[in-house]
Amino acid sequence: MKVREVKIGPLQLGGDAPVLIQSMTNTKTEDVKATLEQINALCEVGCDFVRVAVPSKDTIKAFKEIVKSAPCPIVADIHFDWRLAVEAIEAGASKVRVNPGNLGGLDKLREVARAASGRSAIRVGVNSGSIGRDYLAKIQSGEITKAEAMTRSAKDYVDFLYDSGFYDVVVSLKASDIPTTLSVNRTFRQICDSPLHLGITEAGTAFSGTIKSAVGLGVLLLEGIGETIRVSLTAPPTEEVKVAKEILKATGRRKMGPTIISCPTCGRTEIDLYTLATQVEKLTESIPEDITIAVMGCVVNGPGEAREADIGVAGGRGAGVIFVGGEIVEKVKEEDLFERFTVHLERLLQEKKQKDALK
Amino acid sequence: MKVREVKIGPLQLGGDAPVLIQSMTNTKTEDVKATLEQINALCEVGCDFVRVAVPSKDTIKAFKEIVKSAPCPIVADIHFDWRLAVEAIEAGASKVRVNPGNLGGLDKLREVARAASGRSAIRVGVNSGSIGRDYLAKIQSGEITKAEAMTRSAKDYVDFLYDSGFYDVVVSLKASDIPTTLSVNRTFRQICDSPLHLGITEAGTAFSGTIKSAVGLGVLLLEGIGETIRVSLTAPPTEEVKVAKEILKATGRRKMGPTIISCPTCGRTEIDLYTLATQVEKLTESIPEDITIAVMGCVVNGPGEAREADIGVAGGRGAGVIFVGGEIVEKVKEEDLFERFTVHLERLLQEKKQKDALK
Repeated sequence: MKVREVKIGPLQLGGDAPVLIQSMTNTKTEDVKATLEQINALCEVGCDFVRVAVPSKDTIKAFKEIVKSAPCPIVADIHFDWRLAVEAIEAGASKVRVNPGNLGGLDKLREVARAASGRSAIRVGVNSGSIGRDYLAKIQSGEITKAEAMTRSAKDYVDFLYDSGFYDVVVSLKASDIPTTLSVNRTFRQICDSPLHLGITEAGTAFSGTIKSAVGLGVLLLEGIGETIRVSLTAPPTEEVKVAKEILKATGRRKMGPTIISCPTCGRTEIDLYTLATQVEKLTESIPEDITIAVMGCVVNGPGEAREADIGVAGGRGAGVIFVGGEIVEKVKEEDLFERFTVHLERLLQEKKQKDALK
Repeated sequence: MKVREVKIGPLQLGGDAPVLIQSMTNTKTEDVKATLEQINALCEVGCDFVRVAVPSKDTIKAFKEIVKSAPCPIVADIHFDWRLAVEAIEAGASKVRVNPGNLGGLDKLREVARAASGRSAIRVGVNSGSIGRDYLAKIQSGEITKAEAMTRSAKDYVDFLYDSGFYDVVVSLKASDIPTTLSVNRTFRQICDSPLHLGITEAGTAFSGTIKSAVGLGVLLLEGIGETIRVSLTAPPTEEVKVAKEILKATGRRKMGPTIISCPTCGRTEIDLYTLATQVEKLTESIPEDITIAVMGCVVNGPGEAREADIGVAGGRGAGVIFVGGEIVEKVKEEDLFERFTVHLERLLQEKKQKDALK
């Protein structure tokens, strides 16, 4: 189904827009300084917009200050109290995330939509804990599955908002296991045109959560499903953004700076490839250009195997080569490899910039 | 297509067998001690069998010693010289990996199969660098795509082996980008019954390579494609195995110890969830039992949200609870949380063991 375009401040979800990356602050919202620092750090590593918890009326004043000074659109995270959603919208939220299942009735959702109209988008969140009451009984009687109940609940909420004349709706359907996440999002995309926010809830630590999110979100993104993603990790939020960027790169859903290809280390590797690849990754992590960089373990096969790379380095027996477009441009000692690579990369980026300027 | 069963030493690929995990040593094969140490380390973290480079005739003696003392089946990694494959089989390899495209003709492949018959499996590797000559011309004329040429080349090699009466064939079709990897493996599963070895070549560093592998292998594994996987990382090989295990857990293709679900940290979190989750992950990484463990940031919602977990811990405002099966079993001070969790986990595992014994 063609996805409806929804604005999040100056940004757009759906249509031709790239998949947007979100994260959430874990500072106390009342601590405006710390929260703004974290929002700035998130934006610096590539986050498009940031969600901030608004757990009580006391936090509204701080939220307003945060919205005013933040370099990106801010989403208010609301639970239970619809009045907080209304106040957050009045304080300048570009989107409010509510879970209609815990707001206490559709009339409360209507109040939120009334306040949001023309000002803010609404994310409708549905998880296994916020299924509509009518469906809960049907799940227990075995009439429908939990996944069906989730998609039907979400569709009911969206229909209610559309019928109220409010269309700036984003939907998230979340589970902590991958099969349910895939099933509910695939089904929902068939029956509703709202942009989808993807995430695996309670995915886990930086290590296991990264893998679970890469698999789960990766599958959906490769199917063209998902207009914004949040990788949830029990880790610093900037890590979430870095993982999200890599997932978007891997799925080809968004160009986000260099792609590094590098050999696994093997019994044939003759240089310290691990250190070199890590250095190259660090050097290039903030370059916005969409180029492919190869880091290969043997001089003989490296440049050929990595022919599709824009630039690369291959080493062996104390020496190495720098190659550009599959052709060797310089032979160097192993200890100079990284330094010379830096020089050639700089040149490549300059040339690219000049070419782009001439276009 | 129903996958043919192929033995790798005492292990099996295809049929009802679980997806097996492989890695490759990066020591010098001649250094028997270092290589065996690495093989043991790989097996300890969950590797099922290990590939070892056999780059020259000089390494055959060492390879033979390695095979004799290794705690798992050993695969010989052969390039260019079919005679090395024959010698590695005679030295006890459970599988030889050859790239027919660089062996120098099908008659060489026949010699390898003759030596392997009844003793060793053969992995036929095809990547974009080892496409049959006939197909290279067709790619250049635009008659077929590179992906088609890869699958057709692989099918030709397998047909040749089957026609020679050799059936213990495993196939790997590798590319460094995900779309090609998906396409060639999906197509190949339609046209051939050989077990498939999955991997993304030159996937990258521990960080980006993990994500690329999780997305690429994850998609195929969720479709039921893939009987053995290797995650290629420019990182220590034990890391490859840990990532492989998490991918298999995430896709549900193999039960491999605990699954940890944990909240992202957010403005509502009242304890140091990051440290706690990391501690729990470390504590449980070598437990073989397939249990779900939750680490949650708030006492109020934690146990309910993580109802499907076998055991969990939730903290807030200096205190926390331990819950088992969604029910709170103990309230504790924050500083005692991890210690008390350890005790309850131990109990749960004991009970599970007793129940399993009674079955």
